[in-house]
Amino acid sequence: MYAAHTSLTRSFETRFLSAQRVATMIAAKGLAACLADMAACIESDFRRWEAFDKCARVASHSAQGVIELMPIADQQLYAFKYVNGHPLNHRLGLSTVMAFGVLADVATGTPLLVSELTLTTALRTAATSALAARLLARPGSRRMALIGNGAQSEFQALAFHRLLGIDDFRLYDVDPAATGKLLANLASMGLRGTVCRDAREACTGADIITTVTADKTRATILTGDMIAPGMHINAVGGDCPGKTELHPEVLSRSQVFVEFEAQTRIEGDIQQMSADFPVTELWQVLRGARPGRRNASEITVFDSVGFALEDFSALRFMRDLAEELGVADSLSLIPALDDPRNLFGYLPAAEPLRDRPAARPGHLPDTQYRVAM
Amino acid sequence: MYAAHTSLTRSFETRFLSAQRVATMIAAKGLAACLADMAACIESDFRRWEAFDKCARVASHSAQGVIELMPIADQQLYAFKYVNGHPLNHRLGLSTVMAFGVLADVATGTPLLVSELTLTTALRTAATSALAARLLARPGSRRMALIGNGAQSEFQALAFHRLLGIDDFRLYDVDPAATGKLLANLASMGLRGTVCRDAREACTGADIITTVTADKTRATILTGDMIAPGMHINAVGGDCPGKTELHPEVLSRSQVFVEFEAQTRIEGDIQQMSADFPVTELWQVLRGARPGRRNASEITVFDSVGFALEDFSALRFMRDLAEELGVADSLSLIPALDDPRNLFGYLPAAEPLRDRPAARPGHLPDTQYRVAM
Repeated sequence: MYAAHTSLTRSFETRFLSAQRVATMIAAKGLAACLADMAACIESDFRRWEAFDKCARVASHSAQGVIELMPIADQQLYAFKYVNGHPLNHRLGLSTVMAFGVLADVATGTPLLVSELTLTTALRTAATSALAARLLARPGSRRMALIGNGAQSEFQALAFHRLLGIDDFRLYDVDPAATGKLLANLASMGLRGTVCRDAREACTGADIITTVTADKTRATILTGDMIAPGMHINAVGGDCPGKTELHPEVLSRSQVFVEFEAQTRIEGDIQQMSADFPVTELWQVLRGARPGRRNASEITVFDSVGFALEDFSALRFMRDLAEELGVADSLSLIPALDDPRNLFGYLPAAEPLRDRPAARPGHLPDTQYRVAM
Repeated sequence: MYAAHTSLTRSFETRFLSAQRVATMIAAKGLAACLADMAACIESDFRRWEAFDKCARVASHSAQGVIELMPIADQQLYAFKYVNGHPLNHRLGLSTVMAFGVLADVATGTPLLVSELTLTTALRTAATSALAARLLARPGSRRMALIGNGAQSEFQALAFHRLLGIDDFRLYDVDPAATGKLLANLASMGLRGTVCRDAREACTGADIITTVTADKTRATILTGDMIAPGMHINAVGGDCPGKTELHPEVLSRSQVFVEFEAQTRIEGDIQQMSADFPVTELWQVLRGARPGRRNASEITVFDSVGFALEDFSALRFMRDLAEELGVADSLSLIPALDDPRNLFGYLPAAEPLRDRPAARPGHLPDTQYRVAM
């Protein structure tokens, strides 16, 4: 290691929330309370839909997966999320989805917060699912099929328990070990699950079906014959081009609700349908501008892909929770300058050296600098 | 403050380079050597142009400025930069341009490095300018006009000194205090500058003209009558829609070179010209596929806007320099999971509580959790 910082250098402090810090913050407040309050944050931001400068996410695809940036801003705050999706990562002991994000000040461009978003994304996805289901599922819903028992599944179960009172979970995953893990985690929360032998059995008698599978492929998790009148389908796993979970017949028999239509047409299960397939944006239902569920026999689908606005809300929530809990971690990301035009002056003082020849023939001897400290 | 992390939580470490750390690293290696080596990095990446998945940057404009994300990737590494541009920030004691960036692993999506890029951007912009000028300026160039004496100007001067042997700087800024600051900083490096009373005087007899002004407007820093045959113009400040520095006549009399044509048509000085105005991309000249300067009387322009590939190279350079210097700072950004499907298990252990009523009427009592630690 070399010499420490000089006293000349200062920096703006950007608040920092590590993965461990966020885990501890969630535990301190309680996961269920976090899910409920985050859903309230997301709802309040969706209600002021026009206030946001929105765009589809910017994706970089490779053979192994995708890396995406998801920016969004209102008049005060700019947010973006970095998130990957690599379905084979588990073979390397890595998560399929890893994320972090930033809140910045629109007026000056100063980054205000850098936060982990792997855990936070799991919460915000589940909170958004439960928020949508509260508008769209039949009142009195009790039983939910949970197909796909991976990293998202506990958060989905707890969000639906907390926001809708769901207390009967029917579990299925192609990998029985995943279901075993989910069952044990549900038990640790005092929630009851029933292991089913296939997706069809899980769906039988369910009020709500949540699909949250991870294959980057056109899977058909749900077919038309598994769906009964009055069901609500929370389709979470079909979330990028070429990755779907629902048979088109399920969609054509349903009222379909989306987060941000322009993005869902590309990434959601409705990528299988024609460009004029009718959908309703969630914010319209939240504001009462368009109906949600209209009767007890209608089938409703929330075709969830994850939208930057949810991460904006989640980052706001985490910033406020850190404030409430007195978390003071920070990063020195931006130089603080006495004179903003004197960036050069931020470098530790240097002494000119004239003892080296020019690197390139035909050029003058150059000036080298040695740190004076 | 609340309780510390439990021993249950671990995380992947992402290398972290703070603003102070990067300042110290640059001083340790020497600024001139950093500029030269970074130019070599940028050159080698530009030479493998087709290896990169490129796109124009994603900008969020507001009344006060712009916040941008600049992603790029090859088969191994993904990089992005966050950067703002807020011309009035100096009134608040803040920098016009603040930046940070990330390197990630394409195969798994794991973030490998988070680094400050405010200082680093100043170096990479200057290194790219000097790299272009080495191809385009007349051999034997000695005198450079430097118009705009703000945060970028020292880095431009030193890069041109180091890579081209420029040792006669003619300085002009609308604000004499900026010129005074630059003159003092040049002197501290053993470089000589002459203060000029206007841009015209600075340009008279110059071999190279560098314009690096900051107004977010259609300024006309250079007009046709200030330009003489054989000059090279390094136009750095015209770098977003509505922000230009050169009179169209200067462009129409010149051979114009750009970084990435699709982006420069929108952001560069050539935004003033018709869509078919001929330009050459820098990588084509570096690879010998297209000519640079063809004779001693031609006027050449490098219409620089800053391209994500330069930040990719700069991040690689900083990663390698940190390695070389033994810098070991890191961040806990991503949870490390024993079972990647058990993200829930990353939360500190909780005890179910059944003592709270439901938040919403008609729902069942919910389960609350309290941290057991």
